[in-house]
Amino acid sequence: MLEHPQEMRVLYRSAHSRHGIQSLRCRTFTSYTDPFRSHLCGKLSREHVGQHVSVCGWLHKKRMGQQFWLLRDWSGLLQILINEQRQEQWLDMLQKASLESVVAVRGLVQPRPEEQANSDMPTGEIELHAAEIKLLNPALSNLPFLPHNRQVTEQVRLRYRYLDFRQTPLQRALRLRSSVLMGMRHFLHDQHGFVDVETPYLFRRTPGGAREFLVPSQQAGKFYSLPQSPQQFKQLLMVGGLDRYFQIARCFRDESRNPEKQPEFTQLDIEMSFVDTESILGLIEDLLVASWPSSHLGSPPSIPFPRLPYAEAMASYGIDKPDTRFGMKIHDITAFARHHSLFGTITNDRDCTVLAMVAPNGDSLCRTAFEKQAKLILENEVRHQPRNKVRLGITRISREETGNKFSGLRIPSNVQSEFMDMLKVNADDAVIMCAGEDRVNCQKGLGKVRLFTADYLEENGLKVRSDKFDFLWVIDFPLFVNSDKGQWESAHHPFTAPVAEEMHMLNDPQRWGEMRGQHYDLVLNGAEVGGGSIRVHSAAMQRRILDLLRIDHEELKHLLEALDSGCPPHGGIALGLDRLISIYAGSSSIRDVIAFPKTAAGNDLMSSSPCSVTKSDLDFYHISVNENAKTPLEDSFDSVDDSSAETKAAA
Amino acid sequence: MLEHPQEMRVLYRSAHSRHGIQSLRCRTFTSYTDPFRSHLCGKLSREHVGQHVSVCGWLHKKRMGQQFWLLRDWSGLLQILINEQRQEQWLDMLQKASLESVVAVRGLVQPRPEEQANSDMPTGEIELHAAEIKLLNPALSNLPFLPHNRQVTEQVRLRYRYLDFRQTPLQRALRLRSSVLMGMRHFLHDQHGFVDVETPYLFRRTPGGAREFLVPSQQAGKFYSLPQSPQQFKQLLMVGGLDRYFQIARCFRDESRNPEKQPEFTQLDIEMSFVDTESILGLIEDLLVASWPSSHLGSPPSIPFPRLPYAEAMASYGIDKPDTRFGMKIHDITAFARHHSLFGTITNDRDCTVLAMVAPNGDSLCRTAFEKQAKLILENEVRHQPRNKVRLGITRISREETGNKFSGLRIPSNVQSEFMDMLKVNADDAVIMCAGEDRVNCQKGLGKVRLFTADYLEENGLKVRSDKFDFLWVIDFPLFVNSDKGQWESAHHPFTAPVAEEMHMLNDPQRWGEMRGQHYDLVLNGAEVGGGSIRVHSAAMQRRILDLLRIDHEELKHLLEALDSGCPPHGGIALGLDRLISIYAGSSSIRDVIAFPKTAAGNDLMSSSPCSVTKSDLDFYHISVNENAKTPLEDSFDSVDDSSAETKAAA
Repeated sequence: MLEHPQEMRVLYRSAHSRHGIQSLRCRTFTSYTDPFRSHLCGKLSREHVGQHVSVCGWLHKKRMGQQFWLLRDWSGLLQILINEQRQEQWLDMLQKASLESVVAVRGLVQPRPEEQANSDMPTGEIELHAAEIKLLNPALSNLPFLPHNRQVTEQVRLRYRYLDFRQTPLQRALRLRSSVLMGMRHFLHDQHGFVDVETPYLFRRTPGGAREFLVPSQQAGKFYSLPQSPQQFKQLLMVGGLDRYFQIARCFRDESRNPEKQPEFTQLDIEMSFVDTESILGLIEDLLVASWPSSHLGSPPSIPFPRLPYAEAMASYGIDKPDTRFGMKIHDITAFARHHSLFGTITNDRDCTVLAMVAPNGDSLCRTAFEKQAKLILENEVRHQPRNKVRLGITRISREETGNKFSGLRIPSNVQSEFMDMLKVNADDAVIMCAGEDRVNCQKGLGKVRLFTADYLEENGLKVRSDKFDFLWVIDFPLFVNSDKGQWESAHHPFTAPVAEEMHMLNDPQRWGEMRGQHYDLVLNGAEVGGGSIRVHSAAMQRRILDLLRIDHEELKHLLEALDSGCPPHGGIALGLDRLISIYAGSSSIRDVIAFPKTAAGNDLMSSSPCSVTKSDLDFYHISVNENAKTPLEDSFDSVDDSSAETKAAA
Repeated sequence: MLEHPQEMRVLYRSAHSRHGIQSLRCRTFTSYTDPFRSHLCGKLSREHVGQHVSVCGWLHKKRMGQQFWLLRDWSGLLQILINEQRQEQWLDMLQKASLESVVAVRGLVQPRPEEQANSDMPTGEIELHAAEIKLLNPALSNLPFLPHNRQVTEQVRLRYRYLDFRQTPLQRALRLRSSVLMGMRHFLHDQHGFVDVETPYLFRRTPGGAREFLVPSQQAGKFYSLPQSPQQFKQLLMVGGLDRYFQIARCFRDESRNPEKQPEFTQLDIEMSFVDTESILGLIEDLLVASWPSSHLGSPPSIPFPRLPYAEAMASYGIDKPDTRFGMKIHDITAFARHHSLFGTITNDRDCTVLAMVAPNGDSLCRTAFEKQAKLILENEVRHQPRNKVRLGITRISREETGNKFSGLRIPSNVQSEFMDMLKVNADDAVIMCAGEDRVNCQKGLGKVRLFTADYLEENGLKVRSDKFDFLWVIDFPLFVNSDKGQWESAHHPFTAPVAEEMHMLNDPQRWGEMRGQHYDLVLNGAEVGGGSIRVHSAAMQRRILDLLRIDHEELKHLLEALDSGCPPHGGIALGLDRLISIYAGSSSIRDVIAFPKTAAGNDLMSSSPCSVTKSDLDFYHISVNENAKTPLEDSFDSVDDSSAETKAAA
C-alpha cells in the first residue's frame, strides 16, 4: 500500500483553517505543528461539544458492528460514531480497518445519549460523530496479541515490544521515568549548578570489579571495554576543577544469568568537590524530594532518612539492604539459649550463635509447608560452608500452655515467660529461631527467612509491609573484605576513602578487617537504589591501598598521576535509576521500566540480538571465534521464565 | 600523605557558625551543604568587604615571594594576602605548596590598596587577608604543564586532560554544552510533551551504513553491535504509540582515521508521529531559538531558516552543506564558454561544463601560490575519475584593459564587457573558472576551491565570512544513489520515505535516480549539524525499497513486522551536538567540546586505551586474536598532528 500522507495533510489543513487554525505553526494544543490532528483523543471532553475536531490513533475496539469505534492514542480512548449512511458509503475502508490499524478521523464532538454515558472513561460523556475517516495504515488482522489483552507471556511481550508499548502500564512507566529524570536534572542543573558531562563508553578495562564487555579495535589485539560506571572519569573531572558533575549514564556489566540484572543499566552519577558524607546525603535527600512524582505517588517521603550502620543492619535484618517497611527484627539470644540448652547439644559449641525473630499470625507459620521452605532457604545460605551446621526452630508459644508447639526446639516450661518477655512475644505470634556455628551465615540465613516469612504471610492475606516508601541510609561499611582465597578485596571499589579516624590502621594488617570506608548505600523498601563514597584524594594513600589489594599501579597510572597533580577532597554517589523507577511504578521487575530490555541470557528477543556476523567483519577486527566453544547461555534463549524472575526480584 | 579532611571540616564548621552559618545544611550561596567553604573565589566582590569567608581552590600563582597568592576555582581568581608574620609562622606549609596544590583559606575580605586594584579581574578590587591556610593536597612541582600555559601540543593536553579542564576555555565549553543541552530538554520535555526514552547500546548489526563496533557475547560466535544511531528504536517507539520521543543519545561509528570524527559522538535524537516535514523543521527552528545561549552569543538567529534544494546547493555552492556566510556563488557559463571557445578545445566536447565564480581582492588571487593550491584541490576532487579532464582558469578582468590578466584562459576582448555583465564582476574582482567533462565533479571541485579561496583571503587579512550564525535547510535530496559498482544505495538510509508525488516512480527502475526523499539536512556555517526525514510507514513500501537495495528482509524482520502492526506516519531528525556546540563555542574541532575525546586513530591518550587483555578474558568470549594481523592504526598512535587536524576541520 503506497500511502499518500500529502493528501491527508491537505485535507486536514483545510479542516483546521475552517475552524480557526490558520497558521501552519499551530500550537493551540499539545501538538506541535500538527498537520493531521487538532486534538488528542483523551483530551476531549464536554467543553468541546459542538466543535469540529480531527484526531488520530489506533482502532482499539469495534462495537455493534461498525457503528461504534474506540480510537486510542497515548492520552486515552475516544468513542467514534459512524452513522448508518456513512457505514454504507465507507464499506470497503471499514472492512479493511482491522483492530490496531492507524486512522485519522474528522468530525463533530457531541454529547452521548445520557443512557450511554460511561463514567469510567474520562471521555465517557462525549463521542465524535465521524464526517471523514482516513485509513492511514492498516494493521494485519492476526497480530500476536492485542494491547488490551495482557494474557501473554513476558517472552511474547518482549518479542513484540512495540505492541507492549501500546499497553498503558508500560508506556505509563516510561513516561513516569522520563519526568522523574527530568525533575532530577532540574534540581541538579537549574537549582544547584551541576554540570552535565558526557563521559566515554569506549574505555579501558578497570582492574577488579565486575566483568566488562570487550570491544575489539582496529589495532590487532587491543580492546576497549564498556565501562561498568563512569567512576574514574568523574574523579578526573573533579581533579580538573569541574566542582559539581552529574550525568545520567549508561553502565555495562556482563552479568547475564541474573534475571534481575541487565547487561546495560542506567545510573544518575554525581560527584562533588570539597564535600563530606553529610553533603552528599543531604543533597540526595533533597533531590529525591524535589523530583518526587507526587501526582503518581502522593506526598514525598520525609527527610532526613534514617541511618543504620552496616553492622546493625546485619544484626537486626541479616542483610545490608533491609526492608524496613516491617519489623520482625532479628535478636541474638545466644546466651539465653546456651544457658537453657534450647537447641540441645549444638549450643554447647563455643562458636554457636542463636538468633530469633518474632512473626505475627503464628498459626499459619507453624505448618510443615512453611517450615520446609524456610529450612531450605536457611540451608541454601550456608551450603557454601559445609563445616557449618545450622538448625531452624519455629514455635508457637503462649503463657497459658506449656511445651513445644511445633518443631525443632523445646522451650522448657519454667523459662517460657522469661523467653516471651525477652522477645516481646504476643499471643498469636510465632518465634523463628536459628542456631549455627557461623554468626554471619546465621544472620544472612535468618534475614532471608525473614523476607520469605513476610512474603508468605502476605500471600496468605496478611498485610505485613506498610505502603510507604521507606528510604534508609546504610553507613559504616567495612572497607576491605577477605576473599575465599585469603586475598584482601575492596568491599566496594579501591577508590573509597577509609573513615578518617581509622586511616592509621592501614599500617597494621591485623586491623584491615576492622577498617570502615566512607561509603554509604541508599536503600528503598529493601532494594539498594544507590551507593557512593568519599574518595581517596591522596596519591600516596591510593598507592598504599592498591598495594594492599595487589592491583598493579600501571593499570591506574593516569588516575595516580591525576591525584598527584592537585586533587581536591571529593565524593559522590550513583543512583540506580532502573530499580528506583520500578519501585515508583510499583513493578517488581526493572524490565517493566526499560524500553527495550534483554532477557536473563542477554538476548534481545525483538531483534534477535546478539547474532552472527560475517568473517570479513571479524577479520576487520583481527579476531576469530574459537572452534568448539561452548555456549552455556544459548540454551536458555527460549526459556525466559517470567514468574521465577519476578519471585527472585521480590525476594 | 594521609589527609584528614575531618579535621579541616571541624575547623571550618566552627568558622561558619561563628559567622552566622549555623546549620549543617547551609544553602546560603552556590554551594550545597559545603563543609569547606562559604564562597566561591570568583564570586567575591566589594560587597563582601569586612566579611570572614572561607574559600577553596588551586594555587594559581605566587607573587612577591609568598606575600600574594592567586587562588583559582572554576568561578574565577582571588588574591590572597599573607602578611609577613604569617609567612614566618606557616613557613613549612608555604614551601610545600607548589603551584596547583589544593588549599583552603579562611580570612577577612578587604579592599585592595587603590593603586593595586586590577580592573581586568572581576575580583580585582578586593583581596582576602588569610587568617588560616590549610594545604588540602599538595601538587607535584613538575607538572607536565600549568593550566594558564597552553603552549603545549594537543597530544599533551589529551594525555593530561584533567589539567586541560583547569584551563577556562575547555571547562567553559563543557559548561556551555551542559546548559545548551539542558535548554533543549526544557523545550522538548517541559514545553512540548516529548518523552525521554533511553534505547539500548547493545544491539544487532544494521544492514548498510557505517562500520559498527562489535561486542562479543558469552554465546560463542554471536555479537552485539554498538548502534550508529537509535534509528530503528525510535521508529519502533512510534509504532508503540509514544507519539513524541527524544533522547540525547550516544552513537558509535568505527571511522577512525578521520581526525574530525570521533568513534563515539552525541546526537539529539527526535521522532514524532502524525507529522510532516513542516512540523519537524518548525520544531527544530524553535528548539534552537529556545536553547540559544544568548549570554554567550547574543541574540538568537531569525527563523524560519532559508531552504535550499539539494540540486541548487550543488549548482551554486558545489556542496550539499554550503557555507552561506559569504557569496562567491558558482555560475554555469557553459553556453557562453562554448560559444567563445574560452578554454580552447575542451569546450568542444559535448559533455563539457564550464563553471565560474567571482571573488574579491583579485590581486591577491592572481598569484602562482594561490593558483597552484587551487589547482591541486580541483584535481584532487576528480582524481578518482581518471577519464575526466579538468581545467582551472583564474583571471583579473576590467573594462579598461583587455586580454588575459593571469592564467589558464583568455577572454576575447570583444566579449569582455558581456562576460563581466553576465557574472556581475566588479573592479578588483577575480574570476575563477573550471572546465571539465563531468558536471558534478566540476561543481564539487569548484565548491572546494570556493571554500579554499575564502580561507586564503581571510588568511591574507580580508574578512570574507560574516560573523552571524547562518542556519540553512537543505531539502529535496535524491533518495537513491548509484554506487561505483552500479548498485543502488540509499542516499541516507533505507527508512527515508520518497517524496509523496514521486512514489509511483518506484515501479520504474529508469527513474530511481530521479526520485527525491523526504529528507532534510540542517547546515550551520557550512557544517552539517543535523539531518532527518519522514520515514516509510508502510510495510509494503519498505519491503520494495529493501528489495531495490538488495537488503535481506530477514535482517530487518522486526521492523517490517512492526510496520505491519499499525504504524503511524512519522518522521524525525537528529542534531549532531558535538559539531553544533563546537560552532557555538567558536572551536574548529569537536574535540574541544568533548570531555574525553579520542585521537584520529581512536586512542585515549590519557588511559592508554584500547589496550591488551588477558587470554582468559578472550576465552570467556570465545574469541582469539588472529596471528600476524596487521595493525594499520597503531603506527599513528604517537603522531596526533594537531595543526593538520584543525586545518582539515576548517576546510
